[in-house]
Amino acid sequence: MGSIVELIAKKRDGEALSNDEVARVIQDFTSGAMTDYQMTALLMAIFFRGMTDGETVALTNAMLHSGEVLDLSRIDGKKVDKHSTGGVGDKVSICLAPLVAACGVRVPMISGRGLGHTGGTLDKLEAIPGFSVNLSTSDFERIVRDVGTSMIGQTATLAPADKRIYALRDVSATVESIPLIVASILSKKLAEGIDALVLDVKVGRGAFMKSIENARALATALVRVGTAAGKKVVALLTDMGAPLGRTIGNANETREAIEVLHGKGPEDLIHCTLKLGAEMLVLGDGATSLQDAETKLRTAISSGRGIETMAKLIAAHGGDARVAEDPSRLEMAANVTNVTATSDGFVTEIDALELGLSGVLLGAGRSRADQKVDHAVGIDLLVDRGQRVARGDLLCKVITRNGDAPIDRIRSAFRIGESNIERSPLVLERIA
Amino acid sequence: MGSIVELIAKKRDGEALSNDEVARVIQDFTSGAMTDYQMTALLMAIFFRGMTDGETVALTNAMLHSGEVLDLSRIDGKKVDKHSTGGVGDKVSICLAPLVAACGVRVPMISGRGLGHTGGTLDKLEAIPGFSVNLSTSDFERIVRDVGTSMIGQTATLAPADKRIYALRDVSATVESIPLIVASILSKKLAEGIDALVLDVKVGRGAFMKSIENARALATALVRVGTAAGKKVVALLTDMGAPLGRTIGNANETREAIEVLHGKGPEDLIHCTLKLGAEMLVLGDGATSLQDAETKLRTAISSGRGIETMAKLIAAHGGDARVAEDPSRLEMAANVTNVTATSDGFVTEIDALELGLSGVLLGAGRSRADQKVDHAVGIDLLVDRGQRVARGDLLCKVITRNGDAPIDRIRSAFRIGESNIERSPLVLERIA
Repeated sequence: MGSIVELIAKKRDGEALSNDEVARVIQDFTSGAMTDYQMTALLMAIFFRGMTDGETVALTNAMLHSGEVLDLSRIDGKKVDKHSTGGVGDKVSICLAPLVAACGVRVPMISGRGLGHTGGTLDKLEAIPGFSVNLSTSDFERIVRDVGTSMIGQTATLAPADKRIYALRDVSATVESIPLIVASILSKKLAEGIDALVLDVKVGRGAFMKSIENARALATALVRVGTAAGKKVVALLTDMGAPLGRTIGNANETREAIEVLHGKGPEDLIHCTLKLGAEMLVLGDGATSLQDAETKLRTAISSGRGIETMAKLIAAHGGDARVAEDPSRLEMAANVTNVTATSDGFVTEIDALELGLSGVLLGAGRSRADQKVDHAVGIDLLVDRGQRVARGDLLCKVITRNGDAPIDRIRSAFRIGESNIERSPLVLERIA
Repeated sequence: MGSIVELIAKKRDGEALSNDEVARVIQDFTSGAMTDYQMTALLMAIFFRGMTDGETVALTNAMLHSGEVLDLSRIDGKKVDKHSTGGVGDKVSICLAPLVAACGVRVPMISGRGLGHTGGTLDKLEAIPGFSVNLSTSDFERIVRDVGTSMIGQTATLAPADKRIYALRDVSATVESIPLIVASILSKKLAEGIDALVLDVKVGRGAFMKSIENARALATALVRVGTAAGKKVVALLTDMGAPLGRTIGNANETREAIEVLHGKGPEDLIHCTLKLGAEMLVLGDGATSLQDAETKLRTAISSGRGIETMAKLIAAHGGDARVAEDPSRLEMAANVTNVTATSDGFVTEIDALELGLSGVLLGAGRSRADQKVDHAVGIDLLVDRGQRVARGDLLCKVITRNGDAPIDRIRSAFRIGESNIERSPLVLERIA
């Protein structure tokens, strides 16, 4: 096998690396024999030349085995996770994981933090007083066994090569590469010890993938490579033109997710949760069909088993479980600014990207990974796409500590037209 | 202007960077605000996307101004340098610089060291006892003024950005990019304070550019960009299929170069020296035509002014000037192994690459930049291409400390065929 420089040159010249060569790259990078500046050169070569499915599987496996791989085989039943490529208002994991667990399928979930306009499940969970997302993998395993689901952050021991490579991609303009995205997502998820994975690939202005074609290409690659790596994988492409649900922030998003488990909450969030959950139940042998699965999920809501599981999850993570019964206990800041319509008409668009970026300005999100977020601020939407409004009607409430908010920017995210639009379905495609 | 990541993405996506953006990259890289791993990602993007002439001029200027730029305007007359892209047996600079200086054109020359199969002028000069190539730029300037030529290594203060970028390219598989090669060569050469530059772009197995098309593309880019940067530039494409001259090593190569100044030496080396020197004299206003220039150079040899200048150059650099009169004073190792022909026929090929790599194995060259070379070992060729040999005839002598030499490899570099070949001319093309 050639030197690392020769392997970079091989990829640069459009040849596929062998499994052994890919493994060598990740081993040498992990040991320090391959430097960061060699890795970014290789990443840029991969950006231009792509990778075959075989190379992407090899890269996924190599990054997966750069650290600890959880073995959940001691826990009975199938373990199934869901991964979202990130959006605005996407609090699905928080209601989905307990709901699926309540239906008997285990959900071991390693989640992320918000960055840029997209939020992160860990930040939202931390809005619950006492809730810790920094548990050891043995605590994680115990909670998955006892409660049915646990949600923690990526530890230093899980897929460490991915962690370092992701940090380099972020600062070297090599993020937007499908094989690199696929290997990054799958290596982390496979390290959880799952049997199957449901992917929520977001599409639209508020998503990483702006076009349906790019989203489809990513979803297809994820399903192909995940299947080749021996897992059952299904992907749904879902609309992220507008925020999901009616809240953007942290505490308010967690509140809304909990409301879903109480049989309330906005229609699109319920729909997204049920569709993803149904796929998880079927993959996890918890239902015989998607229809059967949806019925089981709805029953878990109406019977209260979903919210019971949520309460146990919170308690197991050291959080205040009373929040499950009464999500209004979550602290929200006191200053509320009303944003109103300046004309009559129909709400034709609610720009997820602009509202996500406004959330960052409010302090609910972060533009750099080392920033803290304020869990108690955010935006509560009061209208939906397609809704008729009159001048002066409330569009949203902006919750801040002191009233500082980019109100004009937030108002301009609501496009109001004379004629109504036809809303696209939330689930655009299913790829299996 | 965008962030460094945005500039990398811009180049990655095939857009040209503005002059200000290129300058910003080099400034941030020099200051440390742009990391090595960001630079290699950009270098790989440049490898794939190329650069416009405008970008390459901007990159050359930015790297040039990353350090000290010599001002030789206090020295009368034109200052002209020659740069070779590197080959095997290429000792031209050592006879060329004093010869051109003897004809009244100043030659300030920053040279390099050998790496891989190609030799370096600095290593060859250091075979002269006492000769120092590590002089300050003020000593360099003084010697150029007093002797007419000086030859030193790249100092820490001249084009430091190029030095760091070159080191990164070497280990990130981004060497073979014409705009990067052009900016690297020209930034160093322009830092010398020259008015004009003659380029010897080597072509063939022993050269960096193996094909005439690639060599022509590089030469054309060098001439275009150098001209756009305000210098007079001419390039010759010269054959590097076989070694230049009859020696490969250090002391033996310096001896051969000195012999040229004594009116001796092999025909191809004399020819190459005169052709390059003629271009330099014309660009430096030292001759009215190439023919006039060649006559002046021949006269400088026959009159002894060339070798006198060589003696002064050696003395000015602290070396033993008696070597100029008697190059056999240069130490060669005692162990000589004869390599003989194993069949009758014509020498159809003498593989420069194989002999260059064999030289590295002997210790005359280096495979890593931090290795030392042994000046006293090498290979002396005793046949030329096209020459008829009989089985048992001497092909070359291998000079070693202890007899250890890859004799079979060296022998196989000489291809002996039944019918003779037509030799290509040494100077293949002239690009101005």
